[in-house]
Amino acid sequence: MKQSNRATVLASRPRGIPVPGNFAVVDRPLVQPSPGQVLIQNLFISLDAGFRHWMDEGSSDHILPEMPIGEPVMGLTLGRVVASQHPGFAEGDLLMARLAWEEYSLTDATDFFVKVPDQYDCPLSYHMGILGDTGMSAYFGMTDIAKPRPGDTVLVSAAGGAVGSIAGQVAKIAGARTVGIVSGAAKCQQIIEQFGYDAAIDRTGDVARQLAQTCPDGVNVYFDNVSGPLLEQVLNNIAVGARIVLCGAVATYSATELLPGPSNLFNLVTNQARMEGFMTHLQHDRYPEARSQLLAWVADGRLRNMEYLLDGIENVGLAFCHLFEGRNLGKTVVRLAG
Amino acid sequence: MKQSNRATVLASRPRGIPVPGNFAVVDRPLVQPSPGQVLIQNLFISLDAGFRHWMDEGSSDHILPEMPIGEPVMGLTLGRVVASQHPGFAEGDLLMARLAWEEYSLTDATDFFVKVPDQYDCPLSYHMGILGDTGMSAYFGMTDIAKPRPGDTVLVSAAGGAVGSIAGQVAKIAGARTVGIVSGAAKCQQIIEQFGYDAAIDRTGDVARQLAQTCPDGVNVYFDNVSGPLLEQVLNNIAVGARIVLCGAVATYSATELLPGPSNLFNLVTNQARMEGFMTHLQHDRYPEARSQLLAWVADGRLRNMEYLLDGIENVGLAFCHLFEGRNLGKTVVRLAG
Repeated sequence: MKQSNRATVLASRPRGIPVPGNFAVVDRPLVQPSPGQVLIQNLFISLDAGFRHWMDEGSSDHILPEMPIGEPVMGLTLGRVVASQHPGFAEGDLLMARLAWEEYSLTDATDFFVKVPDQYDCPLSYHMGILGDTGMSAYFGMTDIAKPRPGDTVLVSAAGGAVGSIAGQVAKIAGARTVGIVSGAAKCQQIIEQFGYDAAIDRTGDVARQLAQTCPDGVNVYFDNVSGPLLEQVLNNIAVGARIVLCGAVATYSATELLPGPSNLFNLVTNQARMEGFMTHLQHDRYPEARSQLLAWVADGRLRNMEYLLDGIENVGLAFCHLFEGRNLGKTVVRLAG
Repeated sequence: MKQSNRATVLASRPRGIPVPGNFAVVDRPLVQPSPGQVLIQNLFISLDAGFRHWMDEGSSDHILPEMPIGEPVMGLTLGRVVASQHPGFAEGDLLMARLAWEEYSLTDATDFFVKVPDQYDCPLSYHMGILGDTGMSAYFGMTDIAKPRPGDTVLVSAAGGAVGSIAGQVAKIAGARTVGIVSGAAKCQQIIEQFGYDAAIDRTGDVARQLAQTCPDGVNVYFDNVSGPLLEQVLNNIAVGARIVLCGAVATYSATELLPGPSNLFNLVTNQARMEGFMTHLQHDRYPEARSQLLAWVADGRLRNMEYLLDGIENVGLAFCHLFEGRNLGKTVVRLAG
């Protein structure tokens, strides 16, 4: 059996946008489980911008503690139990867990551990994306809160990302017209071709002008994955009865100070509009329904599931940085094995 | 018949909070109606902070044009037709209208005119408050959007005002615990005594500390009549599933520049909370239901309708200024006649 366990540690705290130099790969001894512990081989690591938060000093909260310098970075992983002295887990179990960016994790499994259902006939990495938290966020945010209808204009920010790419397509399947916001002309073209957006807005250009052009009758649904100044610009273009789904806040994850919010919230009053946040994992009992529906759409060709897949522990930090540069299309995953 | 018509004109544009010197009373000739016109004697003038907006230069919008210097100030009035050459109105008709702060208004009645229903046995001034837009805002905002339940803590800002005083009592009738935010210790005492709030928060004190003390389990409903920095403080204290009703934005009406919004909107995500704006007058077909319910509660002593009533055209500007100082308890109305 393998004796070493490579891990990506936090070499230094990012200031603002993370850079590859904030991360380093170290080799650590592989330790076998003691009673009550389980050893997991991580097959895939999911990269999620929200984890940027706990790289900051003083960021400890009820979800996670501040990540210590020199220790493996925390994230979401899909792994298989390779040795167990824990009564709840057997060798071979496939688990989704909040573990570190490392090849093997030794844990007492008291925290966030979900057995991955085996009834789905799909690549394992799907459990990190379309069947995981990002797919579920897109599905529940769109179907439960946004409720797009035919005739609606649905605007999605980070429209090519893990959540946005699914959210836009779910709205399209519901009969809405979809407009995606991304950075750069090339990505505008890509999201139209790959995810069927009816129009795209390039954040690096004149957003106000493009909003007016692509949403002439106003925005009925804004699926907000980024927050920040973009939300203020969208609020100037909402239609009466608009629904704004607050899903993520990428703009604030790297902010070195607290950003002010939109100065035009009163537009919610004049447009009788609604802004609502949600936490996907609290809908856990409805995951099977959502997963079956999403996979059925994939199977009949109505939904494209894209992955931005990198290989090897040495690329995890890089893949994380790419999220903030908007390099990825679809879900960013690093494959360690399997 | 009377030959003169006194009016309160805009003498100068307020900078920030309006002061009595911004208004002046002038005597103008009383003009009889031409064909298509109607002459209305204004009995009551409703004072509403929202009208502050159109006193600013460049404030013209789809609702009202910018108010010109030297011309009578626009507002909401309750008046009786005293002469009509208009086919739609007869002498004696009682109307609620968007007219000026003047004793008589000559109008072609193309704009906002609502015949006042005569089935309610109550003082005429009630139509400016509890049976008018402010009462309707409190009722619909609370019953349709906030939906307070027994066990909920319902927080109301401008809790002693025309909307807040009704909103707080409607929540109390629904079985919730109510906490009101006002300015000054005396007013804290008054809203507890007069409107049955369970606790009060003095905005001139340490709001964060008082929020923690009076809402130890978090805020389930925030009925927001003021917006501004207070909204940010409340967002730090919301409970899971909170509903924030955006009703007014007194803090922004007098702002000389656009105020930034709350920097902590992400709390809506982590608390799965909702923020929703509404426009009362679009519920117009449901006013009778709301009016009957509110009057029934007044009749059986469960709801107290308070008015801050001043007399005479020379006091209209003053009454308006008092709104921004928070002097009023209940609905601010000036009686001109009747």
